[in-house]
Amino acid sequence: MMTLRYLPRSEFERAGSAPGDSYALAKLFADMCRANAIYMIMRAGSGHIGTTFSSLDIVSWLHLHEVGAVVDPPEGSRHPIYFSSKGHDAPGLYAVLTAIGRLDFELIHALRQLGGLPGHPDVSIPGSVTNTGSLGMGISKAKGMVEAARLQGQRLPTFVLTGDGELQEGQIWESLQGAANRRLGEITVIVDHNKIQSDGWVSKVSNPGDLEAKFAAFGWDVARCDGHEPEALASILRRARSELDVPLVVIADTVKGKGVSFMEGIAEGEQLYGFHSGAPNIDVFNRAVDELLDRCDARLDELGLEPLRAELVGVPDRREPVGGHRLVSAYSRALCEQAELDNRIVVLDADLVLDCGLIPFAERFPDRFVECGIAEQDMVSQAGGMALEGLLPVVHSFACFLSARPAEQVYTNATERTKIVYVGSLAGLVPGGPGHSHQAVSDISRFGAVPGLVAVEPSHEDAVGPLLDLCLRGFPQSAYLRLVSVPVDVPFALPYPYVPTLGRGTTIREGGDGVILGAGPVLLSEAFAAAHALTADAGLDLRVVDLPWLNHLDADWLAAETDGTGLVVVLDNHFSKGGQGQMVLAALASIGARIPVMQRAVESVPVCGRNDEVLRFHRLDRRSLAQDILLVAEQSVR
Amino acid sequence: MMTLRYLPRSEFERAGSAPGDSYALAKLFADMCRANAIYMIMRAGSGHIGTTFSSLDIVSWLHLHEVGAVVDPPEGSRHPIYFSSKGHDAPGLYAVLTAIGRLDFELIHALRQLGGLPGHPDVSIPGSVTNTGSLGMGISKAKGMVEAARLQGQRLPTFVLTGDGELQEGQIWESLQGAANRRLGEITVIVDHNKIQSDGWVSKVSNPGDLEAKFAAFGWDVARCDGHEPEALASILRRARSELDVPLVVIADTVKGKGVSFMEGIAEGEQLYGFHSGAPNIDVFNRAVDELLDRCDARLDELGLEPLRAELVGVPDRREPVGGHRLVSAYSRALCEQAELDNRIVVLDADLVLDCGLIPFAERFPDRFVECGIAEQDMVSQAGGMALEGLLPVVHSFACFLSARPAEQVYTNATERTKIVYVGSLAGLVPGGPGHSHQAVSDISRFGAVPGLVAVEPSHEDAVGPLLDLCLRGFPQSAYLRLVSVPVDVPFALPYPYVPTLGRGTTIREGGDGVILGAGPVLLSEAFAAAHALTADAGLDLRVVDLPWLNHLDADWLAAETDGTGLVVVLDNHFSKGGQGQMVLAALASIGARIPVMQRAVESVPVCGRNDEVLRFHRLDRRSLAQDILLVAEQSVR
Repeated sequence: MMTLRYLPRSEFERAGSAPGDSYALAKLFADMCRANAIYMIMRAGSGHIGTTFSSLDIVSWLHLHEVGAVVDPPEGSRHPIYFSSKGHDAPGLYAVLTAIGRLDFELIHALRQLGGLPGHPDVSIPGSVTNTGSLGMGISKAKGMVEAARLQGQRLPTFVLTGDGELQEGQIWESLQGAANRRLGEITVIVDHNKIQSDGWVSKVSNPGDLEAKFAAFGWDVARCDGHEPEALASILRRARSELDVPLVVIADTVKGKGVSFMEGIAEGEQLYGFHSGAPNIDVFNRAVDELLDRCDARLDELGLEPLRAELVGVPDRREPVGGHRLVSAYSRALCEQAELDNRIVVLDADLVLDCGLIPFAERFPDRFVECGIAEQDMVSQAGGMALEGLLPVVHSFACFLSARPAEQVYTNATERTKIVYVGSLAGLVPGGPGHSHQAVSDISRFGAVPGLVAVEPSHEDAVGPLLDLCLRGFPQSAYLRLVSVPVDVPFALPYPYVPTLGRGTTIREGGDGVILGAGPVLLSEAFAAAHALTADAGLDLRVVDLPWLNHLDADWLAAETDGTGLVVVLDNHFSKGGQGQMVLAALASIGARIPVMQRAVESVPVCGRNDEVLRFHRLDRRSLAQDILLVAEQSVR
Repeated sequence: MMTLRYLPRSEFERAGSAPGDSYALAKLFADMCRANAIYMIMRAGSGHIGTTFSSLDIVSWLHLHEVGAVVDPPEGSRHPIYFSSKGHDAPGLYAVLTAIGRLDFELIHALRQLGGLPGHPDVSIPGSVTNTGSLGMGISKAKGMVEAARLQGQRLPTFVLTGDGELQEGQIWESLQGAANRRLGEITVIVDHNKIQSDGWVSKVSNPGDLEAKFAAFGWDVARCDGHEPEALASILRRARSELDVPLVVIADTVKGKGVSFMEGIAEGEQLYGFHSGAPNIDVFNRAVDELLDRCDARLDELGLEPLRAELVGVPDRREPVGGHRLVSAYSRALCEQAELDNRIVVLDADLVLDCGLIPFAERFPDRFVECGIAEQDMVSQAGGMALEGLLPVVHSFACFLSARPAEQVYTNATERTKIVYVGSLAGLVPGGPGHSHQAVSDISRFGAVPGLVAVEPSHEDAVGPLLDLCLRGFPQSAYLRLVSVPVDVPFALPYPYVPTLGRGTTIREGGDGVILGAGPVLLSEAFAAAHALTADAGLDLRVVDLPWLNHLDADWLAAETDGTGLVVVLDNHFSKGGQGQMVLAALASIGARIPVMQRAVESVPVCGRNDEVLRFHRLDRRSLAQDILLVAEQSVR
């Protein structure tokens, strides 16, 4: 248990009614929101501090003075709306919305919990007008909203916050010209230009060059200001309101982690920013809150007001546990081993060097590491060009992004019959905290149908090396390696040596009454535990088979594996449509098997929450699986 | 039969050895290539004349003097390479490559035929270094090639031709900055700035603004010239070769259809360009060739040479037949009817107004028609914004593009639980002429797994209206309407009135020995004919069922439909993975049916060719289906 501090609503009301000028009060308000945002992140165990803090002076000013019900719109206009295109600054937005009473204050205790506040914005939350978290879509979304309002006879002033790393996405530039051509002056984009993205300084990852010249060349009005000085922003917005027919971009110079001295910028000697995502430890939290509250108190003191009174609350530490199987770490080692053997291997990354386990490779083979920035389409087509020139590219991002953003580029590469290995981490339902933009549960459907491509998912640290070896050297086709990122206490072992065969699975638990088939450490661990419970509680003895192949199946193996069995259960850490389970069931029909079958998979947009909550909601946790399997087993015996 | 003219290789050799200056000879060569390119398009029955002609002076100069084996590369450099990112100018490239002997001359008689020259570039063809046809990927591909060459100690000068409409794709802008930052001076991009795209003037579809300022803002060297004056281009390229560390873009001002007076630009009073794709009639062909050859002859005469001697050849007219079921026309009418009923309907298009059947809508409801240009990601996210604001967006492109380029945007929209209807035309294997970039056979896998979305494909003109009505008004979810574009002589009728039910099919032919399930006019027509042949030739009486639902199935209906039947055949105008057939087979396993099954689907990258050739190659034509079904039926009886 940890004791955390947060500021109750009453303190915001007290500070908000202070006599100071509106700019000073907005800065005070933003610091108070910083304290509550970091409280929310600590309590959730994860969240993006750096970007939340860099944007909070902007978000605070907009909500106190520009959007929602706070300003009277000109005739024919609606109340202005606001949303963040990057979305991972959501804790800051929630801190603001709860502080001003647009969102139930009690929700600050439930970030990234089921029924609470999602890790990235969702339209189910008041004040979240669109779903974001997948980068680069915000300006397009705003265009659609504004055009729709116009069609309905209204003008809808719309503020969109973007990141600066986000500007690497092609969709940003795809969206700009049309807004200028159609004179969508209702749109104001504010770039939270904090100069740091996931992989380090934006200028080093993919230098954006002269941003002002770029936006201007696309026909936009451009302004620039200090993003931590509300007066500067307010003055630009006042001026802009008089010219309503050209969209405006404000490049707001900000500091990542602004407000807490030791969270500002990249620490001396480090390559990465220390507070991009994840929650700090309790000491760091306390130092940060001390600094924030001290500054707030000093400001209140100048106004003749009492210091802030924070509330205390004891909560469990929800940061990622130590231990468990970490597939990404195993991948990291295996990739370096392969690269030693084959100098055709070149690694491409889209701003996720840490999460994709690429730091060891980048340090050991700097010439063979290509940092592409947040530009998945460009990355995948570059990989295509490299493969045509004889290299063996290994291409990385989160599974949700890698399978979707460059889907057409992956397909085009496949038509060239070259060999490329795609590696998607953060696969599946969990972690459940970031929400549906990051929960990759449709990646198999997209990669699985790419002609010639083999999709595979290891279940265990020991499986990663052999499967990567197969992907790189075992067959001529391109491959998709799907990696769960959360650490898992995998309760089963694989045979040693583990020699996977394309289309065939490995028994990880014996049992004569039926067979459970699935892939990956999360579901197989749940299935393994469910099988044990069923044996113990109901005498039902199920075999559990690790089938790492997501889109290839050896029909003879399947026939032998299921011959005479009483029940086949297929599990997917994925939508039922286009997943492995559907392939297995179709194959059972093809081989003429007549066995009772049961499928459990994700059937709706994933919920956001703690990992255990999310698995339980989708009935993919061990207890739900055991219950549901028992029900089907009893029916099929009848 | 038509009699066509082309210029034999010997005439190119004769003209090429003429004494004139190299610029004049290049212009003569380009006109001769225009004559052969239009011959190839006429013989194929389709192809893109306008863009082929606008680019041919550039492509000719590059191949005669800059790329391939014709120039001595500087030390440490390879021979320069060239490719077109837009790809639909392929007939011009083939005309050049056959004329200079880099490609077997006889191939000019086999454009868009199986074993001949594909409609868009494919790496199997000498001189085609990468697969294109899907827009916006070329610069990224070049970056990968150049980086790969550098890693292998070489400099690879690379020329990439793009369209100007193509610059609307976000990937273009996503790719530019990295090339400048990494100082990839080996890359020269030439923009074939012919000012006309599929939907009309580029400046009207989506005005690109100041292209020079835009490229310069992304750190590129920018030059501009008349793209029909080789001397101007050569002088820029000579100058650029001395500065090898900044990538260069040459904006080449060209004329769409250049070289034939009545094909140049958009005709008076027309909105669309008349020669974007498709072959003209024989009279137009003859007038065009007369004009080209007359100009060539005049040039030869100035050089003191004899006029050109064209060869004559009789060929069948392969242009699209008149008649047959045209689903896109039926859609066009149905959409207007729906729009009359519901003023929330708004239509979005990505530069395919004619092919998607949107001209009547755009004329009748100009305020509710949004032309997005070649910007599918922006279009889909705009639709998302419109849906959030209460409109009912109907979003259009070719199925190959709509399912892939904006896959993540479609997914994000789905998580907002709004209602959007996506309409993809040009679905499936045929037309087989454009090649794999345009043959949409993985769209169901992508759309099918979008949470909540219903994917549906009409088989008959009479089905289009009722299914569109269901998509718009029959259920709350978003929908994907998949439309075959080729006219089909559909041999079956649907019951009148046709009242489709979600997840259930309609019998279009009775039969007691087994059942064939499939969707769409192409495969159902082939299946219908195969079933007739099997009854007549083998006494095997198969029922044929039109199952328009691609990702939803009513299990009770399926159980009743297949109960007691001897064979179930599932057909997909799509890859087997992620298609309708896999869903049906999985459902058969789930309901515990034990029936011999057979699946026929696309199993490899689609071949390019005439429609009959392509269907036969993939064994989805009536004759192959009858043979293969008979084989399975005989085995399953045994």
